[in-house]
Amino acid sequence: MALDFTLQKTDGKARAGTLKTAHSTIETPIFMPVGTKATVKGMLVDNLHEIGFPIILGNTYHLMLAPTANIVEEQGGLHKFMNWNKSILTDSGGYQVMSLSKLNKIKDDSVVFQSHIDGSKHVMTPAISVGIQHQLDSNITMVLDECIPYGSDRDYVINSTNRTTKWAKLSKEAFIDRDGYGIFGIIQGGVFEDLRQKSAQELIEIGFDGYAIGGLAIGEPQPVMFEVINYTEHLIPANKPRYLMGVGRPSDILGAVELGVDMFDCVLPTRMGRNARAFTSFGEINIRNAKHKNDSNQLDINCKCKCCSNYSKSYLHHLFKCDEMLGGILLTIHNLYFYNNLMKQIRQSILTGTFKEFKQEAINKLSSMN
Amino acid sequence: MALDFTLQKTDGKARAGTLKTAHSTIETPIFMPVGTKATVKGMLVDNLHEIGFPIILGNTYHLMLAPTANIVEEQGGLHKFMNWNKSILTDSGGYQVMSLSKLNKIKDDSVVFQSHIDGSKHVMTPAISVGIQHQLDSNITMVLDECIPYGSDRDYVINSTNRTTKWAKLSKEAFIDRDGYGIFGIIQGGVFEDLRQKSAQELIEIGFDGYAIGGLAIGEPQPVMFEVINYTEHLIPANKPRYLMGVGRPSDILGAVELGVDMFDCVLPTRMGRNARAFTSFGEINIRNAKHKNDSNQLDINCKCKCCSNYSKSYLHHLFKCDEMLGGILLTIHNLYFYNNLMKQIRQSILTGTFKEFKQEAINKLSSMN
Repeated sequence: MALDFTLQKTDGKARAGTLKTAHSTIETPIFMPVGTKATVKGMLVDNLHEIGFPIILGNTYHLMLAPTANIVEEQGGLHKFMNWNKSILTDSGGYQVMSLSKLNKIKDDSVVFQSHIDGSKHVMTPAISVGIQHQLDSNITMVLDECIPYGSDRDYVINSTNRTTKWAKLSKEAFIDRDGYGIFGIIQGGVFEDLRQKSAQELIEIGFDGYAIGGLAIGEPQPVMFEVINYTEHLIPANKPRYLMGVGRPSDILGAVELGVDMFDCVLPTRMGRNARAFTSFGEINIRNAKHKNDSNQLDINCKCKCCSNYSKSYLHHLFKCDEMLGGILLTIHNLYFYNNLMKQIRQSILTGTFKEFKQEAINKLSSMN
Repeated sequence: MALDFTLQKTDGKARAGTLKTAHSTIETPIFMPVGTKATVKGMLVDNLHEIGFPIILGNTYHLMLAPTANIVEEQGGLHKFMNWNKSILTDSGGYQVMSLSKLNKIKDDSVVFQSHIDGSKHVMTPAISVGIQHQLDSNITMVLDECIPYGSDRDYVINSTNRTTKWAKLSKEAFIDRDGYGIFGIIQGGVFEDLRQKSAQELIEIGFDGYAIGGLAIGEPQPVMFEVINYTEHLIPANKPRYLMGVGRPSDILGAVELGVDMFDCVLPTRMGRNARAFTSFGEINIRNAKHKNDSNQLDINCKCKCCSNYSKSYLHHLFKCDEMLGGILLTIHNLYFYNNLMKQIRQSILTGTFKEFKQEAINKLSSMN
């Protein structure tokens, strides 16, 4: 079996399950830290192990440009290269090709683009993207898709979603089956219910190890995101994991779990940590704020992370005021711990049938200081 | 007893000893990492513990400006503030007052200076410096001195060294005795043998827990540095530790240990680590160099640090090319491990009476790739 997903328990639509890959067993719902360039920014892998992450993300677009897929492969694959012995999911590179590259031209069978680093010209096709992800030794390969900009008109969405379906088919054909490795399809269709449903049905017909809901968390209001998930998820077979790409804030995750989503990834905990912002069970804190200057309390009284166990807000404030690297490191550790802990609490509440209560309490607390 | 120093073994002039403070037992010769602003740049304290450092440095000038000595004291002292439970030595701030501050005016009884951060005006006296170091809870306080610029004329050196002696006396008077805490004098005198000897004798008369040789590693050639140590160290009582401030490269340390020095500190391993330069037993490596791009070997085949045990040069090269924080973190870990390991090997060779052979072999290897 390519990837082994077991659904353990549902509570309403919320799901608790386990996903096994060649490298780890992932308890869902799961949040996956983003390790764009073969490193979760500022983190030693020890820090990720201590928190307890069984899977991280890598970004195909960045890695194909530097150090290149060939070098990662020659160095033994991404697990060995970055000393990460648990699971890795890679995106297809499609999103970055279309958002980061200097120029890009989307054709029916390929995207031609220029690197944002040096302007070098590259071609991306479904088979090339899947081949690179194979070279990287990614446990979960994502099909090449186009992430349709929020607000695109119906005609554009129809064309693009048809192309994504075609690319999904080609991606699956290019994927080489291995035990403990799998490939996920990506449902597009913009904010049009019938197009989302058509996309989902066509991908399910092709058959994947999991299904991502793509094209969200790109500027649409939260209710729109939830609406799209709501009219998409019930089409996905219950025995397959559902992955909401690029999401999100704690409240986004809580809402999406309620609608049946199993997997998440987002740069927020790491990026905000580097920018002096901490997630806490009572809302967000900007540690640069002068009121923390002589505050001997920890960031979050409920948190048992390495940062909260050992440091005061006063120390963290000092580190950021002095631009010391350790500030970003400690807040990243805290934020990742917060996210992982949130997921563990969510999972526990699903297993005990108390998700709705947990969610409501968490949402209330999170917004109490906002 | 303020600080307990035991000389265990000499091999020629090279010495192995132990220095006990309230927070740790320090096996000498020792290299002390620099933690200027209450953090060894880029390091979690775990990383320092794993390598095995029993003592680090803090900088009084930086800490008195930010977060301020009052805040560190109110937060429980520097050990608690930065979560470092082993020993701390602080400099007096004199060196930075005279090198970093915007304006400074040295009077007989004080230095008036403006902060390099915000231009605010401050006064430093021997008693103020010692008082701040007390607030910081430093295990080893350094007297306020003037670090005389290399190349200063004899008249200037005479005046300045006399002032340093006077300040040393005032510093000692201001120091509050506590078990496991001590104060070191700083020998000045420029490159004039008689003035160095006069300075040493006067400080020894005052009586300190240890003696630093100051005013070196400020641009003079290595042979000049060794010459000054050579005609100073034998004046220092054998039962007191000798500390060569701000030194240095591995070859500086090897040469100074041979002349009887016990303690060292330097920003090189941390600063160079952040700048992609690694110390190895075969000389220095610039990991940004393109030849490392696809090199699967570790930085130093003889090294057992966390970086060398887990990562290839190819990965480290990639991190620096992408400006990833982890590059500087890993090379700092490696360089600090290298320095600590060098000191352990030096100490072992002294204990077994083979220091001269060890030194010659190390110097040969270190220069083999330079």
